[in-house]
Amino acid sequence: MRPTGKLHLGHLVGTLDNWVALQREYDCFFMVADWHALMGEYEDPGGMNESMIDNVADWLAAGIDPERSTLFIQSRVKEHLDLHMIFSCLTPLGWLERCPTYKEQLREVSTRDLHTYGFLGYPVLQAADILLYRADAVPVGEDQLPHLELTREIARRFNSLYKDTIFPEPEARLTVASRLAGLDGRKMSKSYNNTINLSDPEDTVRAKVQTMITDPQRVKLSDPGHPDVCGVFAYYNVFAPEDTARLRSACSNASFGCTECKKRLAAILVERLAPIQQRREILLQDKQKILDILEDGARRARSVAQQTLHDARSAMKI
Amino acid sequence: MRPTGKLHLGHLVGTLDNWVALQREYDCFFMVADWHALMGEYEDPGGMNESMIDNVADWLAAGIDPERSTLFIQSRVKEHLDLHMIFSCLTPLGWLERCPTYKEQLREVSTRDLHTYGFLGYPVLQAADILLYRADAVPVGEDQLPHLELTREIARRFNSLYKDTIFPEPEARLTVASRLAGLDGRKMSKSYNNTINLSDPEDTVRAKVQTMITDPQRVKLSDPGHPDVCGVFAYYNVFAPEDTARLRSACSNASFGCTECKKRLAAILVERLAPIQQRREILLQDKQKILDILEDGARRARSVAQQTLHDARSAMKI
Repeated sequence: MRPTGKLHLGHLVGTLDNWVALQREYDCFFMVADWHALMGEYEDPGGMNESMIDNVADWLAAGIDPERSTLFIQSRVKEHLDLHMIFSCLTPLGWLERCPTYKEQLREVSTRDLHTYGFLGYPVLQAADILLYRADAVPVGEDQLPHLELTREIARRFNSLYKDTIFPEPEARLTVASRLAGLDGRKMSKSYNNTINLSDPEDTVRAKVQTMITDPQRVKLSDPGHPDVCGVFAYYNVFAPEDTARLRSACSNASFGCTECKKRLAAILVERLAPIQQRREILLQDKQKILDILEDGARRARSVAQQTLHDARSAMKI
Repeated sequence: MRPTGKLHLGHLVGTLDNWVALQREYDCFFMVADWHALMGEYEDPGGMNESMIDNVADWLAAGIDPERSTLFIQSRVKEHLDLHMIFSCLTPLGWLERCPTYKEQLREVSTRDLHTYGFLGYPVLQAADILLYRADAVPVGEDQLPHLELTREIARRFNSLYKDTIFPEPEARLTVASRLAGLDGRKMSKSYNNTINLSDPEDTVRAKVQTMITDPQRVKLSDPGHPDVCGVFAYYNVFAPEDTARLRSACSNASFGCTECKKRLAAILVERLAPIQQRREILLQDKQKILDILEDGARRARSVAQQTLHDARSAMKI
């Protein structure tokens, strides 16, 4: 995860809940991708340091267990850049230029200049991140599938050039959670200013929920609502699925109004966030402990990474 | 210098003699550029390890003094890749795509596939190599001037983005020595198989010199020769300038034949190479000592590089 700001509800249900579940099944590596963040934020990278600590506090508060999983900062394990350089040498430019996410970002991002050498190599560094740990599986959203395919291609190219199966071809573990929309109905994202952050105080959560877009055709309380086009109802689907049957009928027959409905959603969210925020607060009282966890994680990551790099260099005879 | 094979006379008069002279004037850093070598040799990099030791033995034998200068292997100082990644993020793609040497190499090199991501970034890594030591001056041939200009542009861009003069704009120290042609009159290069190597035994030197191209219009001994179009005469210019006046007249009036002339040149070259080869032989009897010199150099390089990286990160607030 790139440290580029506060984490929000989209991260919780889209990523962190999934990570917590994966911990039980896999030997997991969770990485603060500071080099990747720099590719986008290089014009003003000053917030990255604070985001790192803040995000990892959220990870831990959400249930990531540093005893069970390895948490670390990318730039603290030098082997990422070593393997990135090796992969750079054998990755055809065309693979990167044709990458659909690359072309899409260049088209869509207008606030920053991403026509840089580093940004073109974004998926090469991802391949190094993944293959350094010879990962069997990578939890990704659908939008990241082309990058994972590139990782697989790079693994194949390495193995074929140096006639040794050093790297596996990792599989996608597609994130099941539906993507959470923001307050305005668009994708929840810091850049749209439509997020509910994991660190938002109770009052802020309540105020933000009141601004959410509901069914635009329901003007008066007595108008029947259409839950399937309502942003608030979509949140119930994620955060209180057990309520949705009752709510659907109450909304459709106009027996339950939007204001009350939002209040109840806000209460549900506040309750969901409360334990996370309590843990987060305790964690942030001792930032050194978070740094220690990350340093310990870097040590564990390094010992795996060094072995991989050793094997890769042996195969290359360098 | 990239470790891509045996060093030859072109390296001696084009580079090493110059380096030895620079040692008296500057605090010098001489680097085995193994990452740069990999960019070109990635399909079959197996010879790099041997070339590293062999080349550094030649450096030392030619007079590079490890007490006075810092000799090290690029990949042993991790800060090169750190700074390379930082520079990658802020280097516009267009600067690299328009680089004349890049376009020329893609056109001219047919034996290897250089259409890779890494090769496009060749000058970004060079910029990191140079600026990591905040070099005032870089000894380069004319063909490398566009790369040094890119280094200066990257330094300016960094300093302007982060509003701090972290990096100087290094100057070119143009190599004065004329470029030495190979046995066949083309540029001396391993890939043309026209080299006299610093490690060639006496007999090999003599045999190779006998194959050199002289004035093609001088068929018989009694034909007058034209020294200015003679490859052998060009070598006298470099290795025995004190002989050239006498030789020019003896050749032009047909009083001295090509075979004798080549024999004398071979003797001059053998005499020039003898002390280098003696030192080289002693050095190669103890390869561990060469590795120790390089490790000690890496330590010294690292202490400068770490300070630069620290200052760069501070300016970026990361």
